[in-house]
Amino acid sequence: MNVILIEPEEAASSHDGLLVLGGRRAEHLHAVHRARVGDSVKIGVVGGGLGVATVESVEPTRATLRLGVCDRSPPEALNLTVCVALPRPPTVQKVLTQLTAFGVKTFVFFHSKRVEKSFWQSRGLTAEALGRQLRLGLEQGRDTALPNVALYRGFRAFVEEGLPGLMARHDRYLFGHVGASTPCPGDGRGGLVVIGPEGGWIEYEVERLEAAGLKAIAIGDRPLRVETACVAATARLGVGC
Amino acid sequence: MNVILIEPEEAASSHDGLLVLGGRRAEHLHAVHRARVGDSVKIGVVGGGLGVATVESVEPTRATLRLGVCDRSPPEALNLTVCVALPRPPTVQKVLTQLTAFGVKTFVFFHSKRVEKSFWQSRGLTAEALGRQLRLGLEQGRDTALPNVALYRGFRAFVEEGLPGLMARHDRYLFGHVGASTPCPGDGRGGLVVIGPEGGWIEYEVERLEAAGLKAIAIGDRPLRVETACVAATARLGVGC
Repeated sequence: MNVILIEPEEAASSHDGLLVLGGRRAEHLHAVHRARVGDSVKIGVVGGGLGVATVESVEPTRATLRLGVCDRSPPEALNLTVCVALPRPPTVQKVLTQLTAFGVKTFVFFHSKRVEKSFWQSRGLTAEALGRQLRLGLEQGRDTALPNVALYRGFRAFVEEGLPGLMARHDRYLFGHVGASTPCPGDGRGGLVVIGPEGGWIEYEVERLEAAGLKAIAIGDRPLRVETACVAATARLGVGC
Repeated sequence: MNVILIEPEEAASSHDGLLVLGGRRAEHLHAVHRARVGDSVKIGVVGGGLGVATVESVEPTRATLRLGVCDRSPPEALNLTVCVALPRPPTVQKVLTQLTAFGVKTFVFFHSKRVEKSFWQSRGLTAEALGRQLRLGLEQGRDTALPNVALYRGFRAFVEEGLPGLMARHDRYLFGHVGASTPCPGDGRGGLVVIGPEGGWIEYEVERLEAAGLKAIAIGDRPLRVETACVAATARLGVGC
């Protein structure tokens, strides 16, 4: 937790700038941050700016902060859209928290042939559960701007209804494919990238992605787990330079 | 499990090339691979080559394979040495399995000021536990060459006794440092990279690393979790091109 996130409603309803925290945030301040009365701590308002607060009281499960002005801009977003064939629920969490920490702001999960249909029933896909994972990533990356997550329960719907609008925001379009002859660029220029399911694409899916204008790329020459491929693609395509 | 790993002792002691499997490998063949009698499956001998085996019998917790010749070379190793300030035990596992799947063959864990001393007591650091994690990574990356893992329980020992020998194998030496002005190269040329602890380096450590000839690099402009930083550095420095 590199920043303590405050919901806008909390910031608005605080009296004299005083906000009482319970749960995770109080526990973190007490046990990990080892905050003392008078300490300054980094805060951020979800959807707003960054600032500092002063610790007015701190107990194991309850803390009071005096909120300062939160007018510093969050770090710049990555110019990268990441689309992933829906993985198993714990992997969805790893992808969302790690890539949000990097600064990815647009996620798409879609169905493909080798995605288990039961994954779509996961409680991890409710708006509340997704919001929790995204906040964990923002806390890590010291950011306040919530990413968007779109879900396409059909591969054709993703390709026909989702991709065109997403592609319009970028100037290159790639999909991960083990054994592709083109390596994943490492230039950090951003773009749209599509990561397949654990078992790989079926031929029809490769054809559809290529017909839509996407280019196959390989991230190394070995099969990677979905979360590893997502972090690797983000690190190469979205970060640095 | 993209390859079924066989220990050299197992391969040597199989009668007529028949090997009986129990435990994880049998369960995987039955439940995930859904293998049937007569199927060919990819196998590899730890420290040896890759080949195929034929399924002679398969039950939920027991399977018999007829081993073929394992004379195909494993994929090329990455020209990358990864040194990490010892993270908490579950993170050690994530780092080892994910980076082994990529093809990293040299790992070093070392102590630094912001590493909790209790992490050194973890049962995850026994040779047996490390070997298990490395095999998980090899299974993912369809590889047979076991990486080396070295442990330095002191920061000075790492810098003075470990680094010189490791650096001799490479032509560039980098360490991750949030806020460094040089971005992590994305050229896949390899090298030696050092990743710090969750809370970052202390000033003394930065000075020692720089004095040893290492250059500070940033992987994006946000603080990353150790496992994310390790995968990102590997993806940018070790993979592709």
